[in-house]
Amino acid sequence: MRHPILFDTDPGVDDAQAIAIALRHPELELLGLTTTYGNVDVEVATRNALLLAELAGREVPVAQGAAAPLIKPRHPAPAHIHGANGLGDIPLPAVRGRADPRSAAQFIVDTVNGRPGEVTLVAVGPLGNLAAALQLDPTLTERVNRVVIMGGAIREGGNVTPVAEANMFNDPDAAARVLTAGWPLTLVGLDVTHRCVLTPEHMARIEAGQGELGRVLAGSYAFYRDFYRDFLGIEGCCPHDSCALAWLLRPELFTTARGHLTVVTEGDAEGQTIFAPQGRAFIEARWARTPLVEVCLDADGPAVSDWIADSLA
Amino acid sequence: MRHPILFDTDPGVDDAQAIAIALRHPELELLGLTTTYGNVDVEVATRNALLLAELAGREVPVAQGAAAPLIKPRHPAPAHIHGANGLGDIPLPAVRGRADPRSAAQFIVDTVNGRPGEVTLVAVGPLGNLAAALQLDPTLTERVNRVVIMGGAIREGGNVTPVAEANMFNDPDAAARVLTAGWPLTLVGLDVTHRCVLTPEHMARIEAGQGELGRVLAGSYAFYRDFYRDFLGIEGCCPHDSCALAWLLRPELFTTARGHLTVVTEGDAEGQTIFAPQGRAFIEARWARTPLVEVCLDADGPAVSDWIADSLA
Repeated sequence: MRHPILFDTDPGVDDAQAIAIALRHPELELLGLTTTYGNVDVEVATRNALLLAELAGREVPVAQGAAAPLIKPRHPAPAHIHGANGLGDIPLPAVRGRADPRSAAQFIVDTVNGRPGEVTLVAVGPLGNLAAALQLDPTLTERVNRVVIMGGAIREGGNVTPVAEANMFNDPDAAARVLTAGWPLTLVGLDVTHRCVLTPEHMARIEAGQGELGRVLAGSYAFYRDFYRDFLGIEGCCPHDSCALAWLLRPELFTTARGHLTVVTEGDAEGQTIFAPQGRAFIEARWARTPLVEVCLDADGPAVSDWIADSLA
Repeated sequence: MRHPILFDTDPGVDDAQAIAIALRHPELELLGLTTTYGNVDVEVATRNALLLAELAGREVPVAQGAAAPLIKPRHPAPAHIHGANGLGDIPLPAVRGRADPRSAAQFIVDTVNGRPGEVTLVAVGPLGNLAAALQLDPTLTERVNRVVIMGGAIREGGNVTPVAEANMFNDPDAAARVLTAGWPLTLVGLDVTHRCVLTPEHMARIEAGQGELGRVLAGSYAFYRDFYRDFLGIEGCCPHDSCALAWLLRPELFTTARGHLTVVTEGDAEGQTIFAPQGRAFIEARWARTPLVEVCLDADGPAVSDWIADSLA
């Protein structure tokens, strides 16, 4: 079975790896890429999305979306992690194609409604495009097959604050809307992605297997790896965004739980994803008032990392 | 060396175990007990504190303090956990003594200032008495030896909300004042206490070793144990409050880290203790603006539990 997916992304080095899987994996039917600010400015995200599809020899629609958060001011893009060009500041070829004229939100609405009940939305950046799509058509929740989000942290601490993961912190208001919309949703957060390390050996296999696309993945990986070594003491990098696709295709490698998510939108816990397990009683009922979703609490990190490399080798 | 301590408490079944250690342990010099609402109403807490000292044959001052939080409304006492009388609803003998006429806060100020640099404050309930003491004398921070707090949760989730521990949630405003006052402070929270289980075998040894006091500890334990079995599926109970004394006397059994604490005082993360490790960079500086403290991240749970039983057997 092939999963028809829409991939919402802010490429970004680990986004590029996931986009490559979305473009190449025989079990995925990639209907389009929608772009957002986050790891880079949205125009850079769109350029990179177009480029990666072209390097893979694929014609895939790319629709540009959010340039900023819904409400809060935007933080500058983290050029020390992904490079100013989002792909580790390696030289990049010119892009031939152009973005779809529709906004990312409109493209999501049109695509989901065009194949009711079939499309899985995979979102690996700040969640503004999905929030905007729900603003255009709140009934989208009834026609999406599933929403898979890379973001958040349950037991694991945060990466940009002590308690918040970057995608959630970048637009907590959008995250609160999207994670509590009442659609079938799975959260793949740092509890999983911090268990996974894409090693230099993995990347050597990917580079060998992907031609010109592999050269870009390997070059950007080298830059990203410096960040992991210097700031986190890890030899390799966490393939955050690919984990969302790994969950979709290999759910047996993950430990999940059902419960209620609350996204903190202000104060010192801003961007935190608070998880109340289904049926667990707390001192007040407020943490159980949101719709039930599925969250990943753990994963077989080495197996997920190997799956990512195998998918591209 | 004997540690002169003041013990601030809301007994409470696990408080009673810790009070017994404070009364009995040869390495501790118990200067007084101060009481607060929390597990029980403050009048019940005071009665229980007086009773436990009398059952141990000790003359120890007991000063009554906070009957309610500093700012937020109070939740009812959790009678299903500690019993309406705080000691598992077992029959209790009458109390002969009376409380000190001073408020808990004044008693703390007088005691610390009476032995400058010597006294360790051990607080195992909501932190209103320590906050009130800082209101009476903000320079107390310069004359306390150390403050040891049972409360909070760093990596471990909460126990009364998905992210908050009960003592912190009961009075987050007081906790914010006390945990960021700039005095030498160690936080002993759920990351430690959830590693520890006081088993029926432990309690049988304590009952045999403590005479009439042992009868009260064992009787209240039996009630508390039902809660742990029915609600948490644990055979035994977490000796939360004794862990603060275990840290003081056997710090080598604990894993600690230095960093900055921020207590969330409102919203869905209310009562959460956010910990930013010293030197770790986050996207904004705000989590590192509070004074450095020490927090416990883990402990050798079986060794701590054995130490508690050995201290009373």
